[in-house]
Amino acid sequence: MSKIIAINAGSSSLKFQLFDMPSETVITKGLVERIGLNDAVFNISYNEEKQTDVTDIPDHGVAVKILLNKLIDLGVVKSFDEITGIGHRVVHGGEEFSDSVVITDEVLAKLDELSELAPLHNPANVVGIKAFKEILPNVPAVAVFDTAFHQTMPEKSYLYSLPYEYYEKYGIRKYGFHGTSHKYVSERAAELLGRPVEELRLISCHLGNGASIAAIEGGKSIDTSMGFTPLAGVAMGTRSGNIDPALIPFIMEKTGKSADEVLDVLNKKSGILGVSGFSSDLRDIESAAKEGNERAQLALDVFASRIHKYIGSYAARMYGVDAIIFTAGIGENSTEIRARVLRGLEFMGVYWDPTLNQVRGKEAFINYPHSPVKVIIIPTNEEVMIARDVLRLANV
Amino acid sequence: MSKIIAINAGSSSLKFQLFDMPSETVITKGLVERIGLNDAVFNISYNEEKQTDVTDIPDHGVAVKILLNKLIDLGVVKSFDEITGIGHRVVHGGEEFSDSVVITDEVLAKLDELSELAPLHNPANVVGIKAFKEILPNVPAVAVFDTAFHQTMPEKSYLYSLPYEYYEKYGIRKYGFHGTSHKYVSERAAELLGRPVEELRLISCHLGNGASIAAIEGGKSIDTSMGFTPLAGVAMGTRSGNIDPALIPFIMEKTGKSADEVLDVLNKKSGILGVSGFSSDLRDIESAAKEGNERAQLALDVFASRIHKYIGSYAARMYGVDAIIFTAGIGENSTEIRARVLRGLEFMGVYWDPTLNQVRGKEAFINYPHSPVKVIIIPTNEEVMIARDVLRLANV
Repeated sequence: MSKIIAINAGSSSLKFQLFDMPSETVITKGLVERIGLNDAVFNISYNEEKQTDVTDIPDHGVAVKILLNKLIDLGVVKSFDEITGIGHRVVHGGEEFSDSVVITDEVLAKLDELSELAPLHNPANVVGIKAFKEILPNVPAVAVFDTAFHQTMPEKSYLYSLPYEYYEKYGIRKYGFHGTSHKYVSERAAELLGRPVEELRLISCHLGNGASIAAIEGGKSIDTSMGFTPLAGVAMGTRSGNIDPALIPFIMEKTGKSADEVLDVLNKKSGILGVSGFSSDLRDIESAAKEGNERAQLALDVFASRIHKYIGSYAARMYGVDAIIFTAGIGENSTEIRARVLRGLEFMGVYWDPTLNQVRGKEAFINYPHSPVKVIIIPTNEEVMIARDVLRLANV
Repeated sequence: MSKIIAINAGSSSLKFQLFDMPSETVITKGLVERIGLNDAVFNISYNEEKQTDVTDIPDHGVAVKILLNKLIDLGVVKSFDEITGIGHRVVHGGEEFSDSVVITDEVLAKLDELSELAPLHNPANVVGIKAFKEILPNVPAVAVFDTAFHQTMPEKSYLYSLPYEYYEKYGIRKYGFHGTSHKYVSERAAELLGRPVEELRLISCHLGNGASIAAIEGGKSIDTSMGFTPLAGVAMGTRSGNIDPALIPFIMEKTGKSADEVLDVLNKKSGILGVSGFSSDLRDIESAAKEGNERAQLALDVFASRIHKYIGSYAARMYGVDAIIFTAGIGENSTEIRARVLRGLEFMGVYWDPTLNQVRGKEAFINYPHSPVKVIIIPTNEEVMIARDVLRLANV
């Protein structure tokens, strides 16, 4: 029996979940926010009880110390030795990593290099890794990449129609993200369908504040909507998704912004927020739309319509589809978005039941029994995938 | 009986076609190239005979004079009075023009304003209009826009998920292009199918050096792959189509290019040329692929795969499709691309016949008789659409 901790470090946050493995029981979990700012917030849930401490946490190293001491204080562990493995979510694994990997000094050096491809995410992930490494130097650590699952994409999916030397020289290609989630739900879908994943064609819709769609054939990702960065694909909470690339120079000229400033608008002020003008949170948008707010209606239309079209496109990509999966915050909970996304897909064998679609946040089939294409809601669980990979790779 | 001339003016070219209307007989047609350069080339076909003159043509005005005098010399017309109307192709009509329009001074002023949206095309179109206006001031002229047919797109199709004020302030939205071609082939498809266009759902694939796909429901364009500019959508001869927008700042940083220089790469050095590394001409690529050139194979894969996915996506958009249309140079002639694009669409009712698909450059159904979705090759004819609009709007 081993205790494995799954870590997701952001630039000012640290999310953790401690698993008993191989039972996959969650012993405790929590979140540290506002690291490096005044009044950082430490949240932890244990034995169905939630504790919140507000304190100054200058850096991730201190956050890790507080977390580990808390585990002792609460009696979760008697000593740090009980923690047998650590799994770190890392956003970008480039073409180097098509699977999770035990973190060595060499791996750490590679992750630093990859920061160039994911400057918003990888540096924070690396900070988290180093903080744990300093405090628990002898506990094996594993990096689990958001990109790894998509490394099976064939060239025709991942290559942009740009000068080929951009791929060779600069690594410009589609990487795709949310891979751990897409992998989890595709494996779980196979279990729920009672069929080997090797014979299934699945379309996985990970719809959260970030959103991506994946075409998964025989258990392997063969295409996905995000691209070189997580900006591409469908419209998201604040991200634009795909736009005409010629708009960037045009917006620069019109607004006097630099390319990086325009990119910032595309990442942080676009998507549902940009169209609605008032919120990136789909729940706000749904309420306002119900009250007749036209821009909120439009935001729902734009958001759902892009996903709807990706489903058609990925069904074509796989010459058909066996099941469509909805996961993550919006995918698991928004009956409205699922209805809009699924409407009119009967031509490709999707017959869904509006009554079953009322379900929120739990595993459920929402297709009619006779539907050739199944529609499944599966709450995602990236953390358990991380813990599993630690168990598999670090022999703990 | 009236003689109407259809004009397509580029920055250094002038394409013309003289119609007898309403019979739609082509009396003569030709092309002036290298206007403003030394050794401009004037080509004209008349009575099955082709003439080529090489001479200096300093500007479009001179080109028009040479053209009109040639018509007299050849005995095509006895005097300029016989030309009863002129139709000009204009690339960008913005939101102002959802139909062709008789050109007045006011219209001409609007076209100048719209040059901002299509700096590569509209100024040349306007030069052509002004050249004819000066020489034939009393002949009614009509502008026919590439964007007009797509003005029926609903907001959810044309709006980018960018800050809404970009649409309000700068006209940033999807306009779509090749509208005259998409309209022609959709109307012709309805005739060939013997059904009113109002009850049809059509996917039109205009595949030339530029390429765009349109979803046409009830005779109206409701979505299309090109965007704010003709750069967006599928990969083309030299254009990238959609890419992750975050790549523009990344490429700028890596190569030291300005945003406009990167845009130039996306417009002129990407697409089939970029992937293959040696040609933008699909015929070269197909030959090389047959001889085993891997990058040529890859270029075919990338080009066809994007179109294939758009077909799935637009079928979803219209809740199904009645016919798929192929037009323009590649669409009419490349059996290879059509085969790659159509392969595996049986799941949505597309059953096509590889033997019938051998046809090139003429109207033909290439589906099996029992196929619920028809597949039709239709050579496009933008010129006749222009002539028809002159007849309809200018009462000539």
